[in-house]
Amino acid sequence: MSRWYGNNFRIGVLGGGQLGRMIIQDAVSYDIAVDCIDVDCSPCQNVAHQFVVGNIRNKEEVLAFATQRDLITVEIENVSIEALENLESTGKKVFPQPAVLKLIRDKGTQKQFFVEHNIPTSPFYLVDNKAQINAYLAEFPFMQKLRVGGYDGKGVYPLRNEAAIQKSFDAPSVLEKMVDFLKEISVIVARNERGETSVYPTVECAFNPDANLVEFLFSPAQISATVEEEAKKIAIQIISALNMVGILAVEMFLTKDHQLLVNEIAPRPHNSGHHTIECNKTSQFEQHLRAILNMPLGSTDIVRPGVMVNILGEQNYEGDVIYEGLDEILAMPGVYLHLYGKKTTKPFRKMGHVTITADTLEEAKNKAIFVKNTLKAKA
Amino acid sequence: MSRWYGNNFRIGVLGGGQLGRMIIQDAVSYDIAVDCIDVDCSPCQNVAHQFVVGNIRNKEEVLAFATQRDLITVEIENVSIEALENLESTGKKVFPQPAVLKLIRDKGTQKQFFVEHNIPTSPFYLVDNKAQINAYLAEFPFMQKLRVGGYDGKGVYPLRNEAAIQKSFDAPSVLEKMVDFLKEISVIVARNERGETSVYPTVECAFNPDANLVEFLFSPAQISATVEEEAKKIAIQIISALNMVGILAVEMFLTKDHQLLVNEIAPRPHNSGHHTIECNKTSQFEQHLRAILNMPLGSTDIVRPGVMVNILGEQNYEGDVIYEGLDEILAMPGVYLHLYGKKTTKPFRKMGHVTITADTLEEAKNKAIFVKNTLKAKA
Repeated sequence: MSRWYGNNFRIGVLGGGQLGRMIIQDAVSYDIAVDCIDVDCSPCQNVAHQFVVGNIRNKEEVLAFATQRDLITVEIENVSIEALENLESTGKKVFPQPAVLKLIRDKGTQKQFFVEHNIPTSPFYLVDNKAQINAYLAEFPFMQKLRVGGYDGKGVYPLRNEAAIQKSFDAPSVLEKMVDFLKEISVIVARNERGETSVYPTVECAFNPDANLVEFLFSPAQISATVEEEAKKIAIQIISALNMVGILAVEMFLTKDHQLLVNEIAPRPHNSGHHTIECNKTSQFEQHLRAILNMPLGSTDIVRPGVMVNILGEQNYEGDVIYEGLDEILAMPGVYLHLYGKKTTKPFRKMGHVTITADTLEEAKNKAIFVKNTLKAKA
Repeated sequence: MSRWYGNNFRIGVLGGGQLGRMIIQDAVSYDIAVDCIDVDCSPCQNVAHQFVVGNIRNKEEVLAFATQRDLITVEIENVSIEALENLESTGKKVFPQPAVLKLIRDKGTQKQFFVEHNIPTSPFYLVDNKAQINAYLAEFPFMQKLRVGGYDGKGVYPLRNEAAIQKSFDAPSVLEKMVDFLKEISVIVARNERGETSVYPTVECAFNPDANLVEFLFSPAQISATVEEEAKKIAIQIISALNMVGILAVEMFLTKDHQLLVNEIAPRPHNSGHHTIECNKTSQFEQHLRAILNMPLGSTDIVRPGVMVNILGEQNYEGDVIYEGLDEILAMPGVYLHLYGKKTTKPFRKMGHVTITADTLEEAKNKAIFVKNTLKAKA
C-alpha cells in the first residue's frame, strides 16, 4: 500500500538551530511542511514554513505549538519533556519518544542505562555536588560532566588533581574515569517505527583542545574492520534497547587496547553526521525524516570520502559576522559550504561547517587543513 | 581579498516555481536571503525568505519588488523585461542581463542570433501568421514554434503536411525544418561577471511523445568524445557571445550524420540539469548563485552516473495531488525524491522529479524504469 502525508501534514520541531535548518532543507524535497519553535533570530527563522517565537522549555508554549502540528520532533534535548509526555499520552506522535529524551538528557541515567544493557562504557560515579567529589580523590583523573544541560563542549570539566576541584561544577554530575583513548569515533544509527534500523559507516572525530568541540571529522574512520563492525553493533544495540524512533548519534572512544567505550549518545541529527549530506547516499537529515515518518530508511553507503570542518567563531571577535576566505575555499573542487544563518559571532560559536570531498581521504584532509586556515568567522 | 555579501544582502527572483525553489535550497547553505515574486500558491511561497504575491509581467510590480533587493535574477523568461532594463540602467545588478532575456525569449531572434554567430542550427523561416505558412509548403515538414510564450512543450506544433496548417498557430512563429536526429542532448554552461566559464558534461534527453516533455534524462550522454567536446565548445561559444552572467542551458540535436544543431537555449537553471544535485560536484542551482554573485564557479565533474525522471501529473487525474508508490521507490538505494510543493495536479503537470544514481548508467536506467512505472501523481 502507498500513502502520502497529504498537503496539510505538518511536522513541528522543538528548536530552531542549525540541525533544524538542515532538516528543513531536506524536507523541502519531500514537500513536507516543517514548523519550528525557538527564540527570536534562530537559524530556522527564515527557513521554516512557520516559525513560532517561544520557549521550548516552557510546557504551555510547547503544548500550544504542538496542537497545530501532526508530528513532533526535536533538534535539541533540552526541551519540556513534560509537555512531550503529555502530548504522547493523548496520541500525538512524538519522535524521539519523551522517555528516550528523558533518559538521555541526564548523563547520569544515560550511564546507568549503558551499564544495565551491558553497553561498554567507562567507569563512573554520580555526585550531587562539589563536596562529594572528594570521596573519589584516590581514583582521579575524571571528566566531570553536568548531568543536565551541557552542550557543545560546555558542562564538561577535567579533574586531573585535587586542586581542580575548586573550579569544578557544584551541581549533580557524572565523574567519568578519564579514558586513555586512541581515537574518538562516532556512529549514526536510525530506526523507524516498524523497527527497521540502518547504521552509517563509522567516522573519526578530532577535537579542538581549547574548546572541546569537534574540529575535524573524517569519513570513513581509519579503523579495523573488526572495530567497525563492533561499533555498528553497539549502535544498533543501543537504539534497539531504547526502542527509539529517529536518528541516534553514538560517540565512542577507541582505547589504546582496542576496546570500544560508549561516551555519549544524542537522539537527533548530530555534528558528527554533517558530512553525510555530500559523502553518503542518504543524509542524516533525510534519514531522520524517513525514520520519524516511518518510511523505508535510506542507504547509508559512502559515495566519496570526506572531511568535515566546523566553522567556529574566531577568538577575539564578537558581533556581526563577516566571513573571510570564502572565495578562496570555494575555488577548490569538492568544497561544500554550510552557513547556519547566525548573524553574530563569538569565540567558538558554531557558525557553519564545510565538507571537503576528494578521491582519497588523504587528499580531502590536505584540502581541509587549507579550509581551516583560510575560512574565518570574524566581526 | 575576501568579501561577503553581508547579513542584509537580498537576492530577488522573478518567478516562484520549482527552479526558484531549488535555488533557495542551495542558497540556505550560503546564508543568502532569497525573496521571490509570483502568483499565490507558487512552489516558493513557503520556502523563500520573503514571498511577494505579484505579477512578474507587470512593470510596476517588478520595479516595486526590486527596490528592496540587491540583485535580481529570474527563474522563467516570461517577465517584464522593460522593468529589468529600467533597473539595469539605474545600476541595479540584473543577471541574466535584460538584453539576453529579450533575445532569448523570442525564438525568432534566438534563431537569428545563432545564424549571426555561426552557431549550427536547423534552417528556419519566420512567419507572422497562419496564412504565411502556405508559402513554405514545398519545404515541409516543419516544427512550428511560437516566437514568444511557449514553455514545457506548449507552443510547439508539428507541420508534417498541408492538412496540419489548419490547427497551426495563427501568431508570429518560427518554422523550423524538422531534424532527423539520433539523440537530443543538453549542455549546461555557467559564466560569472569576471567572464569565467564552466561547462557541465553533456546529458541525453528522452522525451515523452505525448507531451513533448523530457521524460528521462541520462548523465553522462552516450556520445563520442569528439561530439562531447564539440557540444561543450558550442555552449561556451554561445554564453560568451551573449556576454551573459548566470546559467545557460543549450539543447541540441545530434543528427544521424553526427552533426550538432542547437535547438533552443534557456538563460536559467534547466530541467536538463536537475541531476547535477546528486550526480555532479556542484549543482546547477549552486552554480547559478556562484555565477550571479561573481564567485568562483564550482567543479562540474561527475560524481556518479544518473538518470532523472520527471514526475508528471497522471492523465485523467486533476485536483489535490496524492503520490502513489513513494515507499516503494524510496526503498531503493540511490533514489532521490524532489517534490515541487504543488498542491494540485493535472495531466502532464511537472510535479517533481526523481534522480536515480547507481554505479553504472545501465543500472540507473533499470531503476529509473521502475521509478517511472511506480511513482504516480494522482488526485
